[in-house]
Amino acid sequence: MGRSSFSIGVDLGGTNLRVAAYTHAAERLDAITLRTRTEAGPQAVLRDISEAVAAVREKISSAGEFAGVGIGSPGPVELPEGRLLDPSNLPGWHGLELKRELETLLRMPVIVESDANAAALAEWHLGSGKTHGADSMAMLTLGTGVGGGLVLAGKIWHGALGMAGEPGHTVVYPGGLLCNCGTRGCLEMYASATAVRRMAGETGLGSDLNAQDVAERARGGDARARRIYAGAGKALGIALAGIVSTLNLPLHAIGGGMANAWDLFAPAMFDSLAQSSQIYRMTQADDAEVFEPRRTNVCRAELGHEAGIIGAALLPYFI
Amino acid sequence: MGRSSFSIGVDLGGTNLRVAAYTHAAERLDAITLRTRTEAGPQAVLRDISEAVAAVREKISSAGEFAGVGIGSPGPVELPEGRLLDPSNLPGWHGLELKRELETLLRMPVIVESDANAAALAEWHLGSGKTHGADSMAMLTLGTGVGGGLVLAGKIWHGALGMAGEPGHTVVYPGGLLCNCGTRGCLEMYASATAVRRMAGETGLGSDLNAQDVAERARGGDARARRIYAGAGKALGIALAGIVSTLNLPLHAIGGGMANAWDLFAPAMFDSLAQSSQIYRMTQADDAEVFEPRRTNVCRAELGHEAGIIGAALLPYFI
Repeated sequence: MGRSSFSIGVDLGGTNLRVAAYTHAAERLDAITLRTRTEAGPQAVLRDISEAVAAVREKISSAGEFAGVGIGSPGPVELPEGRLLDPSNLPGWHGLELKRELETLLRMPVIVESDANAAALAEWHLGSGKTHGADSMAMLTLGTGVGGGLVLAGKIWHGALGMAGEPGHTVVYPGGLLCNCGTRGCLEMYASATAVRRMAGETGLGSDLNAQDVAERARGGDARARRIYAGAGKALGIALAGIVSTLNLPLHAIGGGMANAWDLFAPAMFDSLAQSSQIYRMTQADDAEVFEPRRTNVCRAELGHEAGIIGAALLPYFI
Repeated sequence: MGRSSFSIGVDLGGTNLRVAAYTHAAERLDAITLRTRTEAGPQAVLRDISEAVAAVREKISSAGEFAGVGIGSPGPVELPEGRLLDPSNLPGWHGLELKRELETLLRMPVIVESDANAAALAEWHLGSGKTHGADSMAMLTLGTGVGGGLVLAGKIWHGALGMAGEPGHTVVYPGGLLCNCGTRGCLEMYASATAVRRMAGETGLGSDLNAQDVAERARGGDARARRIYAGAGKALGIALAGIVSTLNLPLHAIGGGMANAWDLFAPAMFDSLAQSSQIYRMTQADDAEVFEPRRTNVCRAELGHEAGIIGAALLPYFI
């Protein structure tokens, strides 16, 4: 765990496969990015991972002691087995023994986590959790879907099967819109980039706008675009209220690409959170911009899109 | 922590004040029950507690080593200070330094917890948690209100300020009925004995029926009474789904007086939970009656109304 050790993180996404080596202090030493060859099937992708890990390791073998390999995978991941469970971003990979197969290919232990848990670990250890000295936190990652992870008393909270911390599929509106997961009213249907895009079409704002485009329209004063983000913030506030009532954590960080629209959704999010949680009303920070350790704080995540792969590389240090 | 030690638990309720000594194995040695003299003010009640603790301790001083005093108080309780925060069952006690004042009176350390957390600890250590060997669990206590507590990896989870595990004030229906706490749509408005009573009035079943009366009507075949309990079960399922998505625990126990109507609300609760949580659908026990350690189980609490005071007496062993 000294400064002279390094580890390798793997970020297995539905589109890209990234492999990078970091020092224990999270300085990037080397990286390889490949397209995830989903059309070639899991075995081909596993070989790509294995070859990229070997190449990165070979290249920086002089960097110090090798601490191990961590991989962040689309969730849900069944733990401790490291088995994929019907990941929506990797159709057809249900049941894949990711940990066991990679360990066979690499001939070394591999630590598997959901990508959202890996990102939460990084945000806690190196981002807002570090900045504020929080021993526990929740992270919500707003992207194509909504992921999340919990760090409780310094450890990723896995739950019985490794599926804890899935706010994207928490119901915010019972009987609401039908989600891909089969549940009605999931947060993901209201507060993901996909949801923003869908609402842009539904409200007649435009059928080919992405979340970024809608954010620009909103900042330009478009009332429909502003309402879309306010609606996302309201749904987020309801989901956060559930986390606050259940866990009473000091810190909640919102990350992912859609967090760039913080200015657009945060006011509605804080209003909705205050309306939906007595504990939040009693414990909210006086100033949402200032962290107060004995209060309930909600902030933007500090690490950007690298959180997932940095978190994967941190895994060998946190088992 | 040997078999020859004993501790004293205090259950401070809005109506009754109970003080009891238990062996470490939770065998009751002696008990005093008093009326909570709320009209005389907090100081008088604190003196009553102090005198009852001294009397019980004196009487059984030969029972072995004295492990300490634990007290379960109406929540929310700010921890570690042990300060009451506007408890709805003890109006006017907001801000009372329960821990500090009792320690001064008793001249010994006192461990303060919310009554719901104390009950969860007892249910985990001696009830369904012990039966099933679960290292973590959630407990929901359905009574006048809905309380709750979390035991995570063998410890009560307090959160930043001791207010974790408050499912009663989790929103199940955004924009729904206005709760005393100031939030709309809290679980307590749909799944407490108070809610059952209110719904009996609203539906014309009867304006002076208590939850037990409504249960008897339901068992006698009354369709309105059955719908009331089905509605409570549905709300419970939504709240449980949020806990499952957040924490993925192996065990959830439902206790409190209203748990006696398990036969009436459980079918709707399980349906609603399955509809509201993908993780539950993937991990639910095949047979709700049989505990499966690698699945998500929901069961009736095994300890009855004594759970709170037994849990209070356990507190000195779990700090």
